[in-house]
Amino acid sequence: MFTWLRVRESKAMLAFDVVFTDGLARRARLSLRHGQVDTPQFMPVGTYGSVKGVLPAALQQMGAQIILGNTFHLWLRPGLDVIRTFGGLHRFESWPQPILTDSGGFQVWSLGAMRTISEEGVRFASPVNGDKLFLTPEVSMQIQGVLDSDIVMQFDECTPYEVNGRITSEDDARASMALSLRWARRCNAEFQRLENPNALFGIVQGGMYEALREESLARLVEMKLPGYAIGGVSVGEPKEDMRRVVAHTPHRLPADKPRYLMGVGTPEDLVDGVAHGVDLFDCVLPTRNARNGHLFTRFGDLRLRNARYKDDTRPVDESCGCHACAHFSRAYLHHLDHCGEMLAPMLTSIHNLHYYLREMREAIEQQRFTAWRAQFEADRARGP
Amino acid sequence: MFTWLRVRESKAMLAFDVVFTDGLARRARLSLRHGQVDTPQFMPVGTYGSVKGVLPAALQQMGAQIILGNTFHLWLRPGLDVIRTFGGLHRFESWPQPILTDSGGFQVWSLGAMRTISEEGVRFASPVNGDKLFLTPEVSMQIQGVLDSDIVMQFDECTPYEVNGRITSEDDARASMALSLRWARRCNAEFQRLENPNALFGIVQGGMYEALREESLARLVEMKLPGYAIGGVSVGEPKEDMRRVVAHTPHRLPADKPRYLMGVGTPEDLVDGVAHGVDLFDCVLPTRNARNGHLFTRFGDLRLRNARYKDDTRPVDESCGCHACAHFSRAYLHHLDHCGEMLAPMLTSIHNLHYYLREMREAIEQQRFTAWRAQFEADRARGP
Repeated sequence: MFTWLRVRESKAMLAFDVVFTDGLARRARLSLRHGQVDTPQFMPVGTYGSVKGVLPAALQQMGAQIILGNTFHLWLRPGLDVIRTFGGLHRFESWPQPILTDSGGFQVWSLGAMRTISEEGVRFASPVNGDKLFLTPEVSMQIQGVLDSDIVMQFDECTPYEVNGRITSEDDARASMALSLRWARRCNAEFQRLENPNALFGIVQGGMYEALREESLARLVEMKLPGYAIGGVSVGEPKEDMRRVVAHTPHRLPADKPRYLMGVGTPEDLVDGVAHGVDLFDCVLPTRNARNGHLFTRFGDLRLRNARYKDDTRPVDESCGCHACAHFSRAYLHHLDHCGEMLAPMLTSIHNLHYYLREMREAIEQQRFTAWRAQFEADRARGP
Repeated sequence: MFTWLRVRESKAMLAFDVVFTDGLARRARLSLRHGQVDTPQFMPVGTYGSVKGVLPAALQQMGAQIILGNTFHLWLRPGLDVIRTFGGLHRFESWPQPILTDSGGFQVWSLGAMRTISEEGVRFASPVNGDKLFLTPEVSMQIQGVLDSDIVMQFDECTPYEVNGRITSEDDARASMALSLRWARRCNAEFQRLENPNALFGIVQGGMYEALREESLARLVEMKLPGYAIGGVSVGEPKEDMRRVVAHTPHRLPADKPRYLMGVGTPEDLVDGVAHGVDLFDCVLPTRNARNGHLFTRFGDLRLRNARYKDDTRPVDESCGCHACAHFSRAYLHHLDHCGEMLAPMLTSIHNLHYYLREMREAIEQQRFTAWRAQFEADRARGP
């Protein structure tokens, strides 16, 4: 195959070294089979094995060290036979650095009426071709093994915030959390049976109930997994509930293991997560919003479609060093978006991802997190 | 503005040096206000100030030296006020090298029933907002002056091959050609009046009639313009008619001036054009076909959507050095296309443009054009 892609495959155990702390915030280094990740780190989402509109080379250039893939989507398309031909997802998508894959749990859960959840797993019809499929903790581990993901997520049930307008009760949240725990044990057993040399992360659930989250966390920590995630947030709950969970759970997780806040969020949410000890984030927000002309900047969010940018010769963010800001004006991006030119989402995605990656690094490199955060919030409130 | 874009604006006259000939084929160097163009050269089409799906940096990387813009489209969007704010199209679209713009004539002609052609010019309703507009030779020169195009094309009437199934008669083709000639003189007068320091090219018309083309050519050559184009081909005529015109006209144009074959064509058409003394080409084929999964390769055309490529680990073209072929497989591109991922047209456009640019350079660099052409045709017939 392609000679350039010398995928590093060290057999070394996962290592995680916290090199600096400031309050609960931490700066650490995570070593995985395909390379090193400096945390806090944002992970761009590459659902189908491609971060929408961004070349892998551009991701590397902007400092991305780990990207996400979606087990559910990749299982359906291109399917495991194709991925196996390439010896895993890294070679298939030409990304030599670490990859984290979710378990597929969130996606099958999102199918709503089209799926049935049982103790065994989730039955559903493929949205691609209608095939009847059955996703279980074991199958999820097998798929993620074929993908050769550096970080394998346990199969879990994402506890909903509300169903048909009714907020999930503590009893329902407990049952859901307990199911996820049983699935975590089955995942771990299958992961060991497969002799997967990568790292399995457990996911703390428990809905909006602190006591349940503490129980979930305690049972998962007993399993001595190499890392832990906070799941079941950013699922439609009010912002104050999300902030409450983020303030509650991360710092209770083992200090010597990486902590991943799933599916969160705005730049402010990421900074808040870091303040509470989170190391890893992922979210579709920077790329999805980019495609809709919603840009994140140091001085707040910029809506590219606003007519005021029609002849604005300034870059999106004068303090930004991304390819889009170094070479193109707001007026040009506004024009491209207006004409439906593909270059618009290409450039805005580069900018937003660069912004997400930059802020995460700078916050810690300056080693004065509280003051930095105050400046960050003041700047963001100013307006672009 | 952006410091990187130090647009070179020499006041030197346009220069054209033929450095090598092989039969009618020639290798030359064209010096324009924003830089140098090695010919034969293919010009990627950037209708709205963007070559669809390709960053300017990627165009430079693959060796593009001049790109096209469409006067008609840019006049309507973003409009001249915006372009003027940037001092021209180069800074607006962040392309520091030469730009050629068409006159808008072909686009207004293509509006069909929505436009009225008179001696004075073409009246039409804007397809963007319905505004009543009037495009004349003078207006076209004024717009292209604001765009600051290195090569300004005369406003002409594109003689149709047929109208409603009736092939254009010699009388109609003569009247059309004569109108284009009168417009060429008005363009030249306006171009001089505006003291435009760039280069105005005339366009040979005459439909499929050699005698008319010779008359058009003779009258245009009398005007001593810095370059000439062959227009009115690739407008629906049978391939043999196109080949007949391409065999007839280019070598009759002045040997010491650049020759541009407008809107042509397939890789084979380009090689045929070079064989008959053409220096410059433009066509939407490489980028449009790329978006439809139609790839050009050394060994013939490859239809990416064919199921046979589902697990094909080879690059699109093993002899190609483009970014797509260096890093990605047919299976991956097939998958991206299948999933509607933006990265598919981004990578296929890079490949097709690279192929168009590479072939044009290699043909001449080898300085044995006839043998090269034979090998080119044998290779292309083999199949990918």
